Amino acid sequence: MSTSIRLAIDVMGGDFGPRCIIPAAIRSLALFPSLHLILVGSADIITPLLAAARYSADRVTVVPASEQVLADDLPAQLLRGKPDASMRVALELVRDGQADGCLSAGNTGALMVLARSVLGMLEGVQRPAIMAALPVAGHDCHVLDLGANVDCSAEQLFEFALMGSAAAAELTGNPNPRVGLLNIGQEVNKGAREVRAVAVLLAASEQLNYVGHVEGDGLFRGEADVVVCDGFVGNVLLKASEGVAGYLQAEMRDAIEASRLLRWVSPWVRRSLSAMRQRNDPSRHNGASLLGLRGVVIKSHGGAGEQAMLAAIGRAVKACEADLPARIAQRLQGAR
Amino acid sequence: MSTSIRLAIDVMGGDFGPRCIIPAAIRSLALFPSLHLILVGSADIITPLLAAARYSADRVTVVPASEQVLADDLPAQLLRGKPDASMRVALELVRDGQADGCLSAGNTGALMVLARSVLGMLEGVQRPAIMAALPVAGHDCHVLDLGANVDCSAEQLFEFALMGSAAAAELTGNPNPRVGLLNIGQEVNKGAREVRAVAVLLAASEQLNYVGHVEGDGLFRGEADVVVCDGFVGNVLLKASEGVAGYLQAEMRDAIEASRLLRWVSPWVRRSLSAMRQRNDPSRHNGASLLGLRGVVIKSHGGAGEQAMLAAIGRAVKACEADLPARIAQRLQGAR
Repeated sequence: MSTSIRLAIDVMGGDFGPRCIIPAAIRSLALFPSLHLILVGSADIITPLLAAARYSADRVTVVPASEQVLADDLPAQLLRGKPDASMRVALELVRDGQADGCLSAGNTGALMVLARSVLGMLEGVQRPAIMAALPVAGHDCHVLDLGANVDCSAEQLFEFALMGSAAAAELTGNPNPRVGLLNIGQEVNKGAREVRAVAVLLAASEQLNYVGHVEGDGLFRGEADVVVCDGFVGNVLLKASEGVAGYLQAEMRDAIEASRLLRWVSPWVRRSLSAMRQRNDPSRHNGASLLGLRGVVIKSHGGAGEQAMLAAIGRAVKACEADLPARIAQRLQGAR
Repeated sequence: MSTSIRLAIDVMGGDFGPRCIIPAAIRSLALFPSLHLILVGSADIITPLLAAARYSADRVTVVPASEQVLADDLPAQLLRGKPDASMRVALELVRDGQADGCLSAGNTGALMVLARSVLGMLEGVQRPAIMAALPVAGHDCHVLDLGANVDCSAEQLFEFALMGSAAAAELTGNPNPRVGLLNIGQEVNKGAREVRAVAVLLAASEQLNYVGHVEGDGLFRGEADVVVCDGFVGNVLLKASEGVAGYLQAEMRDAIEASRLLRWVSPWVRRSLSAMRQRNDPSRHNGASLLGLRGVVIKSHGGAGEQAMLAAIGRAVKACEADLPARIAQRLQGAR
């Protein structure tokens, strides 16, 4: 690895494409002095956008790619078709050692399938997992899997715990993150089959700071730093929490709008709430990690704007600096 | 069924017990003119509490029960032990036709197991489901299952859709509620095995107003009136949504506390937000229905206060008035 971080960015993905991603990438150069950008995509689009920007030319490389993964491309078909898709080319740069990691805002399923195929998995990993940070009381909680794997086996869930713990330690600086297993409470069946089975493995592990079961509400009370669950459950949890937050914000807006007093004081209300809003801003938490691969792969939300893209680039830089795949490989080896 | 609604209430359950439940029950008599209360529990506790209350004596019956289901009683053991537990006696009153329905704030697992054993299931139902209403944009969304069943089969999920649709129609007055299947989005695997299988059954059903997949965020945008899911997922969804709402409320309180201006105007802020708060007040949504049984069984939140208990009594009255089990049986028969 060179002393600088060479990050390959698929500029063609996401709802806003290169017109959002390239300005964000250029802004990120000021924030991360060791960063070298490799922008992958249509040269016809990248060149004029770069021409309009101010940056030091030796910190940006353009790698042309003539094709693009679309939102409705079937992941399996991408394994044969579109050999010059920007997403694939970015992953190949990581595989060939020309980039330390890559970032895409494209189709999650496609990124997962192509990353597995191009980079391969770390030894002993069955499938990669998607991990993201959610804002909870007092800190961030890293949750995995968020939708890459459904119907997970107990062994897979255990792997998620090892990978998530290693990754959260590197990304947050907390060397011993508390790991919880998402479960349900005193209802009839205490958890699903696989959850019951993995609880035994987790409790027996000496490598993990395992704190036991965490319920949906406990997660948001900050009871763990890493929460492990099946990808179906994790995806529902993630989207429901976004849904509730969005719903309550809309209710609040309507209430302010309906009250003459609140309308009048709303500039002050807004100012007073800005720290809270910033702390819980979804864009600040953009950038999910694909864990278990032989390389750093970060997925940005498709709807990310410039600010959110900057956050994802920041996570990618951190993951590259920590050499996350090597840390995870060590952890998995230690568990055997 | 008599023209009045005879509701058996297990007054011994819940965190606050008879001291909360009996005053709420007495207050409910004014709200529901057709209601006759059957209070089940320790006569030594009930009698002095009733003596302190004002109510018309011909609308309240006391049925003594000398035992009580505790939070840590194992459901399976209750099938043999504690024959005079208030929860069991309340269910037996329903079975014997002396009550039109029953309500308990006790241990969910125990209530489910005892209800199955005492009342039995409707013909063709494999297992009962727990359904509750969540406040979402513009209306209430009925979600089931919320934790009675994990590792559900496609047939069970299909039954949940039939039962939930019939129940929501009766409880809300909307004859044709939109039914959605909780699923995850464009990630690698489109949903879990059983979800894929039940989607085929749902799409083929002529009895349901099936609107297809709903994701965790879509649920809170009001995309369906009834949402069907495995109990593990439903429980996580329910508790996570409570967790996020609680977290955001705490953040809001802290922000108001930290601003001198907001502290100063906070009485007016509170007043302006009261309609919104009331609409989303969890206590207004208290009272989950156990569906699929040969009788009306309503579960109150264990931590319910008087206001929440009133809401649960209201739901029980509605379910009895509609003769919900008969409506559900009709719907299930029609589907065969």
